[in-house]
Amino acid sequence: MALFRNCGLSAVALAMLCAAPASAQVSKSGYTLPAALALEAAVEAERACTSNGYAVTVVVVDVSGVIKIQYRGDHSTIHTRESAFRKAYTAITLGPIFKQETTSGLAKLVASSPAMPSFLTIPNVLFLPGGVDIMVGDEAVAAIGVGGAPGGDKDEACAQAGIAKIKDKLPK
Amino acid sequence: MALFRNCGLSAVALAMLCAAPASAQVSKSGYTLPAALALEAAVEAERACTSNGYAVTVVVVDVSGVIKIQYRGDHSTIHTRESAFRKAYTAITLGPIFKQETTSGLAKLVASSPAMPSFLTIPNVLFLPGGVDIMVGDEAVAAIGVGGAPGGDKDEACAQAGIAKIKDKLPK
Amino acid sequence: MALFRNCGLSAVALAMLCAAPASAQVSKSGYTLPAALALEAAVEAERACTSNGYAVTVVVVDVSGVIKIQYRGDHSTIHTRESAFRKAYTAITLGPIFKQETTSGLAKLVASSPAMPSFLTIPNVLFLPGGVDIMVGDEAVAAIGVGGAPGGDKDEACAQAGIAKIKDKLPK
Amino acid sequence: MALFRNCGLSAVALAMLCAAPASAQVSKSGYTLPAALALEAAVEAERACTSNGYAVTVVVVDVSGVIKIQYRGDHSTIHTRESAFRKAYTAITLGPIFKQETTSGLAKLVASSPAMPSFLTIPNVLFLPGGVDIMVGDEAVAAIGVGGAPGGDKDEACAQAGIAKIKDKLPK
Amino acid sequence: MALFRNCGLSAVALAMLCAAPASAQVSKSGYTLPAALALEAAVEAERACTSNGYAVTVVVVDVSGVIKIQYRGDHSTIHTRESAFRKAYTAITLGPIFKQETTSGLAKLVASSPAMPSFLTIPNVLFLPGGVDIMVGDEAVAAIGVGGAPGGDKDEACAQAGIAKIKDKLPK
Amino acid sequence: MALFRNCGLSAVALAMLCAAPASAQVSKSGYTLPAALALEAAVEAERACTSNGYAVTVVVVDVSGVIKIQYRGDHSTIHTRESAFRKAYTAITLGPIFKQETTSGLAKLVASSPAMPSFLTIPNVLFLPGGVDIMVGDEAVAAIGVGGAPGGDKDEACAQAGIAKIKDKLPK
Amino acid sequence: MALFRNCGLSAVALAMLCAAPASAQVSKSGYTLPAALALEAAVEAERACTSNGYAVTVVVVDVSGVIKIQYRGDHSTIHTRESAFRKAYTAITLGPIFKQETTSGLAKLVASSPAMPSFLTIPNVLFLPGGVDIMVGDEAVAAIGVGGAPGGDKDEACAQAGIAKIKDKLPK
Amino acid sequence: MALFRNCGLSAVALAMLCAAPASAQVSKSGYTLPAALALEAAVEAERACTSNGYAVTVVVVDVSGVIKIQYRGDHSTIHTRESAFRKAYTAITLGPIFKQETTSGLAKLVASSPAMPSFLTIPNVLFLPGGVDIMVGDEAVAAIGVGGAPGGDKDEACAQAGIAKIKDKLPK
Repeated sequence: MALFRNCGLSAVALAMLCAAPASAQVSKSGYTLPAALALEAAVEAERACTSNGYAVTVVVVDVSGVIKIQYRGDHSTIHTRESAFRKAYTAITLGPIFKQETTSGLAKLVASSPAMPSFLTIPNVLFLPGGVDIMVGDEAVAAIGVGGAPGGDKDEACAQAGIAKIKDKLPK
Repeated sequence: MALFRNCGLSAVALAMLCAAPASAQVSKSGYTLPAALALEAAVEAERACTSNGYAVTVVVVDVSGVIKIQYRGDHSTIHTRESAFRKAYTAITLGPIFKQETTSGLAKLVASSPAMPSFLTIPNVLFLPGGVDIMVGDEAVAAIGVGGAPGGDKDEACAQAGIAKIKDKLPK
Repeated sequence: MALFRNCGLSAVALAMLCAAPASAQVSKSGYTLPAALALEAAVEAERACTSNGYAVTVVVVDVSGVIKIQYRGDHSTIHTRESAFRKAYTAITLGPIFKQETTSGLAKLVASSPAMPSFLTIPNVLFLPGGVDIMVGDEAVAAIGVGGAPGGDKDEACAQAGIAKIKDKLPK
Repeated sequence: MALFRNCGLSAVALAMLCAAPASAQVSKSGYTLPAALALEAAVEAERACTSNGYAVTVVVVDVSGVIKIQYRGDHSTIHTRESAFRKAYTAITLGPIFKQETTSGLAKLVASSPAMPSFLTIPNVLFLPGGVDIMVGDEAVAAIGVGGAPGGDKDEACAQAGIAKIKDKLPK
Repeated sequence: MALFRNCGLSAVALAMLCAAPASAQVSKSGYTLPAALALEAAVEAERACTSNGYAVTVVVVDVSGVIKIQYRGDHSTIHTRESAFRKAYTAITLGPIFKQETTSGLAKLVASSPAMPSFLTIPNVLFLPGGVDIMVGDEAVAAIGVGGAPGGDKDEACAQAGIAKIKDKLPK
Repeated sequence: MALFRNCGLSAVALAMLCAAPASAQVSKSGYTLPAALALEAAVEAERACTSNGYAVTVVVVDVSGVIKIQYRGDHSTIHTRESAFRKAYTAITLGPIFKQETTSGLAKLVASSPAMPSFLTIPNVLFLPGGVDIMVGDEAVAAIGVGGAPGGDKDEACAQAGIAKIKDKLPK
Repeated sequence: MALFRNCGLSAVALAMLCAAPASAQVSKSGYTLPAALALEAAVEAERACTSNGYAVTVVVVDVSGVIKIQYRGDHSTIHTRESAFRKAYTAITLGPIFKQETTSGLAKLVASSPAMPSFLTIPNVLFLPGGVDIMVGDEAVAAIGVGGAPGGDKDEACAQAGIAKIKDKLPK
Repeated sequence: MALFRNCGLSAVALAMLCAAPASAQVSKSGYTLPAALALEAAVEAERACTSNGYAVTVVVVDVSGVIKIQYRGDHSTIHTRESAFRKAYTAITLGPIFKQETTSGLAKLVASSPAMPSFLTIPNVLFLPGGVDIMVGDEAVAAIGVGGAPGGDKDEACAQAGIAKIKDKLPK
């Protein structure tokens, strides 16, 4: 009779079976945005907002949702660090799932969903315009988030301006 | 050629291999201390300390380190909730590994270890006397922690008193 | 006259009264899912989603809501670790109370409740489909949660597939 | 045979036994420091430091370790909010146990204790001079903490000055 | 001209003015519920629920919102520790402001308020029935919270049963 | 061919280009509210509420959202520390963006916005009346928040009273 | 004269200068370990420990320190989830800096360093043997951590066994 | 006789006395480093390290310890975000108190202090070289922190290089 105390043995057997097949090889993963390009996009995004009189913070995150660049513009108020980060985070983690490149697109998509209240409780997720994925082909390689303009659409325009600045340097 | 995009397939193959062997059946797990007994031990531990003039908090945790009982005695100061919990937590999680039933035993064991500073950074671990495992045979089924007496040895004596109170009701 | 300083004495009296009755014996508790079976279910759940082109994370929790297995599939985005965990957590903690085995069932149940907004503030609770209890008879012994598919119903189908894989090995 | 499922019954029996004895009456508890006096002490403590050229934060906590007053003086640097709070917290929670009214006294007491490293891991505890209990007779009714002077002894002198200011208004 | 650097001096002047008037004396504060009574109420509340087949956790907090008793009944699921605590916390902190002794009363009061969504974001607040203040005259001296029954009204009935058990021992 | 390993070089080039233009000089920044004035406003705000029978906590934050003064009035309940802080925080960080000086103004502005649910998830933001910016000209130099009155409008009236008290001492 | 209000303009100028040079192109980044291989290594590491009678948790993290696999073996105690994670985290983040592939190597390196106490305060870092980098050439592509054996050297042997299992499938 | 219930009145009296003297006027506060200059220093610091083969993160904080710039260089490992921030934080908050401009200076100062273990428990403080205050005259207006080089002295040299780059643009 197989008792609980036998679990050790069963784990041994399991391990023998668990060998990953030959097809699961380690290979070069997806594209990574160099810090220099991330910075160039962030600086341009901040400039675009400043030139309209909006004091903002700009954040660029990698595909793990970790901050690469945080640029807190002069006079931007204190919560903008948080909102900029969370817009970028939302774009990079929910964008690929729902085939949306912007948080404005995501916000529209979920606006009427009964799941909306639950979505709002996921850490760092923020359904406000201002987050945009940086795409290489159909792969999101990073995301940029802007917070501080009086209206998310204005934040998102700045984020787009930042990406436009580096577009030509991204692989086709 | 095995590309990264093939991982899905390899996962399929993996899953087919991964079937747990027949010996890994679900069975009744270890003993659980009923809340009523946990409470009886906690109340006795607090009484033992109070009768010596020590104002303490007593905590009983289960094998997952989750609090079953917290009993904050009159006049016990505010950090004792934390120290009582952590002593119980330390006893239940490190005791079985190092074959020690008390935090005083664990404290002696690690005192001269070069790993001591690192141990101290593990969340909730506290190498102060006052935590004791509640044993059924050689299995720790819960742990009791006491904090607030002027010296951990005094805390631990109260914890032991609490366990002694319910000893006869535990399976041999 | 009974003063506050007499509380010590009263605690003594209390302790004498508080002896748990003989009927509160320590006994074998409920079923526990071995890690090997939990893993087998998780791997199958991930495979089911991958075969549909969904990149997901799968989490299995025990009855204390503690993670046993976390399996983050290739290409799954970063928040899926959180959503998978919280679906499993919700199933294991709210399921038994409301006699529901899935988070989709729970979500339907609370959707029109005036208590819904309050439920949403309880840590780790998430009313999105994708969490399913693993039952032995009428006892939830663990739960599996899946996150990352474009729609909770798709996540939940994968969770169910994972459970189906190990069904025959569970006690009747 | 007493099974686990019988625990409910045993809890019923327990409750019947658990009646607190008549001596455990609700009575007026210890002294509470009014906010106005707490403020007067804090302002004087800050003044004492400022007059010596030290920029400090002063915190007064109640017996539950909750902040009553926080007074961040001009030019005090950012961590002083934390150090001032923790000194007050340490005085109110460890002082009564070890019969010390100051964190300098506590620091001396524990300096050579083998338990010192463990003490340091208890949340909010800080063994630096600058925390002093506000006593009514032999009862600590609140504590004041000061942080920011270049040396804890200087902080503590300011805390003492704050208490001296309100001494005559405290019950003998 | 008064410059910023003169703030030290002005603080000196402020302190001289700030002496609390003679009327702000330290006096005995409000009533405190002894741990023994808190425990008796908690045990009775758990018993009331258990006798109806509900597995619950019961928490008693003091006026500072700090847990005095936590009693996690057998079979209660994992989030009930949190919900029980938060119901007690809500009763003790919002009850006195809105002249309500129960979280069911508070929930009704705020249900149609435009401020409701904001209230929900305050830490530890939970507008679900099951939290009840323990009153001495018109003063809330503690609160009891129950979580785990299939419906907050059932939780609250247990909390009320717990209070009823100790009513005669409370000052009139 | 530009490889990833060349990023170091490109960063060198970037740095040479990145020199901030001569116009970005370091200059005196905006106004700062001395602690003494912040305290005077806080004390008056608490007095205004107390004279109406409301037990409140008052918080003053600087432009970085960091607490300068916390004054917990007698009998104020425990969550008021949090609500007072968050109202002040909300005023100082969202006020300048939306050209509102009060949280009541902000609450009205966002009440019907589809972005409201998302706004509620930003840490420390609270859309309840009771937070008011302290203005020097059109610059918010600090903010005061009040919590504990039975209605945010009453809290806000006290905050306004606090500011009125120091108005004449603020630069025109 | 360049005033603070001119910063916007200077930012514009900065942005124009800040263009990343052509050499900072986006390219394929380093190797990524597929989930299937990570799982295979984890299962083998757990098996190696179980076969020696050690109940452990195994964690595999990616280069961002994010958990890919968590496998909590049967009977492993509760803190092992934390220690296993932190050993993996330490290996992946400090290993490449100090040219060490194991936490045992790192622990030896820092043991006598005056910086040791400070290192210990960095979140998630743990200088106990049991964490090993998974290398492709001289690049750490992931790390595995094991916790629960009675001695870190035993944990590390299991981690090494896990890596040995997949070695042949890693690129040379 | 002055009772506790009279506190309201005493607070009124207090407030009347508490008027800040005329000398506590609001004036222009200290210098602020524009974001453009902070960025220029950060980019140069990263370049200095990269040119030596060190992959680092650079952080600039303001006097409130809030991040202005975070620049995570290519290949820098994951904990460097934390260490860079904490070095900057330590320099800005402890530097002015102990008249040190660098964390290496602070580290030397506290190395032999009996208070060292306590200092280490203050949040965000890190006594490792690599943090340097940015001074205008004798006023610290910001701080820069670097983490990731194999030795704090190397980190600090990069931080110094960053400051040297903008030195001429700082007021004398």
